[in-house]
Amino acid sequence: MKLQVVDSLILNHWTTTRIKLKCCSIKSNRMASTSAETIDEILKDFPSGPLDRYRKQASFNWKKLKVILNSEEMLRYKMDIWHRMECDPLFQHSVITPSLPEQRRIAVARMYRLKQWDLVSLESVLEDRRKVSAFSTAIFMYCPSTAIKFSLTFGMFQSTILSLGTKQHFYLYEEAAKPDSQIAGCFALTEISHGTNVKGMRTVATYIPETQEFELHTPDFEAAKCWVGSLGKTSTHAIVYANLITPDKKHYGLHTFVTPIRCTKTLLPFPGVIVGDMGEKIGLNGVDNGFVMFQNYRIPKECLLNRTGDVLPDGTYTSPYKDPNKRFGASLGALSGGRVTITNLSSSYLIKAIVIGIRYSAVRKQFGSTEEDTDELPIIEYQLQQWRLFPYLAAAYALNIFGNYLSNLFTDFQMNLFIGEMDDRMASMGPEIHAVSSASKPIAAWTVRDGIQECREACGGHGYLKVAGIGDLKNDNDPNCTYEGDNNVLVQQTSNWLLSLLSSSKNNSEVFKTPLQSVDFLADMNGILKSHFSSSDITLPESLIAAYQWLVCYLLKVSQERFQKNINLGKTLFTARNDSQVYYAHSLSKAYIEHYILKIFLQFIKENCDEQNLQNVLLKLARLYGSWCLEKHLAALYQGGYLQNSETSVLLRDNILNLCSELKTDAVALADSLAPPDFILNSALGMADGQIYKNLQAAIYNNPEVFQRPSWWDQVINANTRPKL
Amino acid sequence: MKLQVVDSLILNHWTTTRIKLKCCSIKSNRMASTSAETIDEILKDFPSGPLDRYRKQASFNWKKLKVILNSEEMLRYKMDIWHRMECDPLFQHSVITPSLPEQRRIAVARMYRLKQWDLVSLESVLEDRRKVSAFSTAIFMYCPSTAIKFSLTFGMFQSTILSLGTKQHFYLYEEAAKPDSQIAGCFALTEISHGTNVKGMRTVATYIPETQEFELHTPDFEAAKCWVGSLGKTSTHAIVYANLITPDKKHYGLHTFVTPIRCTKTLLPFPGVIVGDMGEKIGLNGVDNGFVMFQNYRIPKECLLNRTGDVLPDGTYTSPYKDPNKRFGASLGALSGGRVTITNLSSSYLIKAIVIGIRYSAVRKQFGSTEEDTDELPIIEYQLQQWRLFPYLAAAYALNIFGNYLSNLFTDFQMNLFIGEMDDRMASMGPEIHAVSSASKPIAAWTVRDGIQECREACGGHGYLKVAGIGDLKNDNDPNCTYEGDNNVLVQQTSNWLLSLLSSSKNNSEVFKTPLQSVDFLADMNGILKSHFSSSDITLPESLIAAYQWLVCYLLKVSQERFQKNINLGKTLFTARNDSQVYYAHSLSKAYIEHYILKIFLQFIKENCDEQNLQNVLLKLARLYGSWCLEKHLAALYQGGYLQNSETSVLLRDNILNLCSELKTDAVALADSLAPPDFILNSALGMADGQIYKNLQAAIYNNPEVFQRPSWWDQVINANTRPKL
Repeated sequence: MKLQVVDSLILNHWTTTRIKLKCCSIKSNRMASTSAETIDEILKDFPSGPLDRYRKQASFNWKKLKVILNSEEMLRYKMDIWHRMECDPLFQHSVITPSLPEQRRIAVARMYRLKQWDLVSLESVLEDRRKVSAFSTAIFMYCPSTAIKFSLTFGMFQSTILSLGTKQHFYLYEEAAKPDSQIAGCFALTEISHGTNVKGMRTVATYIPETQEFELHTPDFEAAKCWVGSLGKTSTHAIVYANLITPDKKHYGLHTFVTPIRCTKTLLPFPGVIVGDMGEKIGLNGVDNGFVMFQNYRIPKECLLNRTGDVLPDGTYTSPYKDPNKRFGASLGALSGGRVTITNLSSSYLIKAIVIGIRYSAVRKQFGSTEEDTDELPIIEYQLQQWRLFPYLAAAYALNIFGNYLSNLFTDFQMNLFIGEMDDRMASMGPEIHAVSSASKPIAAWTVRDGIQECREACGGHGYLKVAGIGDLKNDNDPNCTYEGDNNVLVQQTSNWLLSLLSSSKNNSEVFKTPLQSVDFLADMNGILKSHFSSSDITLPESLIAAYQWLVCYLLKVSQERFQKNINLGKTLFTARNDSQVYYAHSLSKAYIEHYILKIFLQFIKENCDEQNLQNVLLKLARLYGSWCLEKHLAALYQGGYLQNSETSVLLRDNILNLCSELKTDAVALADSLAPPDFILNSALGMADGQIYKNLQAAIYNNPEVFQRPSWWDQVINANTRPKL
Repeated sequence: MKLQVVDSLILNHWTTTRIKLKCCSIKSNRMASTSAETIDEILKDFPSGPLDRYRKQASFNWKKLKVILNSEEMLRYKMDIWHRMECDPLFQHSVITPSLPEQRRIAVARMYRLKQWDLVSLESVLEDRRKVSAFSTAIFMYCPSTAIKFSLTFGMFQSTILSLGTKQHFYLYEEAAKPDSQIAGCFALTEISHGTNVKGMRTVATYIPETQEFELHTPDFEAAKCWVGSLGKTSTHAIVYANLITPDKKHYGLHTFVTPIRCTKTLLPFPGVIVGDMGEKIGLNGVDNGFVMFQNYRIPKECLLNRTGDVLPDGTYTSPYKDPNKRFGASLGALSGGRVTITNLSSSYLIKAIVIGIRYSAVRKQFGSTEEDTDELPIIEYQLQQWRLFPYLAAAYALNIFGNYLSNLFTDFQMNLFIGEMDDRMASMGPEIHAVSSASKPIAAWTVRDGIQECREACGGHGYLKVAGIGDLKNDNDPNCTYEGDNNVLVQQTSNWLLSLLSSSKNNSEVFKTPLQSVDFLADMNGILKSHFSSSDITLPESLIAAYQWLVCYLLKVSQERFQKNINLGKTLFTARNDSQVYYAHSLSKAYIEHYILKIFLQFIKENCDEQNLQNVLLKLARLYGSWCLEKHLAALYQGGYLQNSETSVLLRDNILNLCSELKTDAVALADSLAPPDFILNSALGMADGQIYKNLQAAIYNNPEVFQRPSWWDQVINANTRPKL
């Protein structure tokens, strides 16, 4: 995390900014409301229609809840961004997926429009740091490709320059920060045959003292940098991770080089640079992921981002870090925010899917209680449909609140590092944020993956149409399970941290007093492990928390035991750890983060809801989320003896169904509080007016070829025109 | 099912065929091998390469297993089809998804090529009925859009004409059967606002005695026929389901009408027919799903497929069916085979995905046992990766064997009906096939859905490239969860059947003696419910079967109790049933079909494997499949008291991991036995030579725009050329 500290002695411009920042209070995150419009003008009432039936039955005011979820300032900020998009021809949606080159072109054009709008300048973020999260989710909700293009080409490129570079590199930061920036960056770490095992990277940068250059070289295609977002067609510069070799043939591990890729006059690659497009993907096709190979490609010595290590002109290596592992860790710090961002943005995808699923289910009717009944029931009335969708509605709230919390916390953390106000609490925050986000990113990505799919199926065949808007969500969310750390590998970071805490706790009982309080209950681990479920209803908040605390303690204990058993069997440390993942450490990380997400959800309700009716409905959601997640751990709860009565699981399940039933009349309003404007939701099935069939017809008719006879029509009716055998 | 019987008195051509058929033995399904090539010539050895490491360790001969799985005759038949495709320019794959109109065009051209090849003529199927399943899976493995286009445009159209039509319609069957057919059919049942509730359809066909015509009318867009495969661009004729109304305004329910849609000279729609394309979908975009609305559209009386009901010229309604419900059931019989087909074809998708996942994991290396270890481990060595993939390898075998079994059984059943050899056993087969396929189709579609996704994630980022071949599988499998009956609704058919058997068993203890023997153990339900798990290893075949039998009995009992409880609470029958699905009837259907699939798998091993080593490896797969499925029911096994010791679940899980570990050295060979040729697999990551990186590079370079500068290049380096604000 240290690398986020900018060397202010070197960067004069930066110093001024720091002073400005110090004048703001870090805690007061409020932006004055300057708009004359009231919230009621921004959040217009919905037109009367088929959704009235449920909206009228809601127990709360959806606008009030929406303001609580977003804050009034951030809601205005997001609505303004979305309004700009809706009014701009560049951001109009197409009913048919454009060709791959066209998708690339559109994403670039939109990226530059966002740049022109200049809505997240450093200055404006300093005014209100919540904008980082609000801007990101606003753009991701509109179009993930656009958001990714923007954040990689500028954001990640700039922050890496600041983090790992020194004075000589600042011009690149400044240039990239301009609304009319002439350079486009990217971040090249992964290689074709190495992703997760970063230390296995094989691209080298050999220092040539004679010319004071580095020679970048890619031994073969397997070592080509790949999956580099924005490199395929666009980038002029790449942050390249390569193994630094000094003239004495010594290897100093991965360092970063700002490498010129394409000429800034012609956008053609420089000789010695083989750069290309990875081609079509399952989703996110606006992003031109690229690969690059260097053929003894010389770049000036100054291209080395030399904060964590440098070479003197004669080739002597120097570094402020004594420990190469720490230097290595520092050079990868640019990735740390990625998992926090994904935790946050994936809830945006789930929000869109569940809004579509709920609104559609409240209008779509099928069957009545008698065969002759012509007044069919909306499918949301069916217990099965409620059980399929409402837990994901609850999860959308849980993950949204958690994502926001984590994102704002992380921004605060970075800002504090940046201004140098680093107390002990802040210092110990790093590993806990790492542990939390290494589990929250996977759990969010997986929950959202399954939730989107459930919504697709819950909308039946119509959900399979592109204009339903669910397919793109599904395909765009998919890589969240992989990038910024493969989900299955990542959760091991969390369990490793928990296991190491357990191990340290033998000598130091204070280890569980961590800044985010995600593990405070572990201090009483032995007491908790002796407890059994004894209350009447396991879906009550305090019962859920107690059950989860027992579960985390139990899984921690058995994971440690399994690891030790493997060691006793003579397995190496490496194998002993690998062989204690399935059913053990893996489940531990899940239980840990589910407990923490639930805890933050309950805390949010307590701190933000004054009105009883809002509290009531949110508590139902929190209980549903918690008990639905807990139900998946039933086997462990029985196995470890926390549950001893077979009736408890029957009651748990009954109460999950009861909570679903109780939420039925509020479900549409709960979706309304989450929903972005129709233009952003972009679904014929999920629009706020509930006119699912009219909107579907309009969307289908909008296809220019809807009624057109195909060019090959004669092949159908005349066999002689068909391709010959 | 009755409707599959063709009225041979009317169709003379048909009578000849029936006589031919009677001369063949139904049971001897063997086709003489006519090819001079030996199996070793057809199944060539794989080139030496990175997969040797595991292939050399295999405990069995992959070719022998492949022959057992397919039968030599069907293997030759499928290899011939695939070879034809590979040699035909029409069937070459594109590296980038073509435009929507182009996908439509290609699918139609390929459809007509299949027609020209004429590989599943009635005569050839009569020679060997296994061809129905073999042809279908061969084409689906190549490209689902092509397969669907072919089967809807011809197969389903023809079989509906035969089933529901009479002599006067036979010319349509004959025309569609010709290799150079000039007409193209489709099947129009679903309406925009009614799918599952078929009786809610609102399209009407009013008989006009004056002109002896029917007037088809669609009251509004909500009643438009939709999702009709091949209607969007191609069909000349549609089988339209409409409510028949006689001149006295009496409604006789859904009947089928062969309706001229487009002119067979111009392929333009007839006046009064508003027909269009539904547009882009998540997948299957080669299929032109269409919608159609009729505006008082007149068609001759003869368009009514009048086997199940007719009108006299004066408008008097007549029907051989006294019970309108039976008539209705008969008119929907054309759908019955769909679920059997989906059960079978979805395993083809899983086979492709798991072959890619296994081969990639056996070559891809990441990390070694020490940090300095440059000799990294293939990721298949990791317990977690094994546990993620091997259960789906086992499921691919289980579903493939089951799909084949069910498909051949169903073809036999249909043939027997057709030749009129209908004994009591055959007669009672109908409801059981319905119950089995109503659970096997959902369980297959869901397992395959999750398996494909796991393979995508297990291949990391590279799995997200289109050229990996996994994304299209995912998007093409998705609708299997919905069409031919929504999965969640469909499983209720199965549980309803089980509950009705339970109810009948009070008066008749013989009800569980059904032809497919899927419920024979229920005769001893009370005894089974008293049993507990007591053996040493629950993953042994007999233990798994015993545990599943207990589970089905238990879930049947508690589902019935839950239903009764709802009735006692005063709920209507309709609601009582709906409110006993989640955790009860829904789980019952799953357990029932998992048990049956496992049973058929074990039976297959017993009947087909002479060699001990083949038996051994297949038994491991069957045990892994069974125990992995059973593990998901652990809560119920504890709740109902079948498991009483917490150690049992620990052991179950340990043994799942042990089975995975034991399968490691056979996994690649097991994938080889399932895999289609590389051309059909169509995955840069899964090719038989295991050269994942070389193949990946070749696939990426194959994109014509891989190195090309985009047309909008100037926007990147010159802000003045960007779209203005």
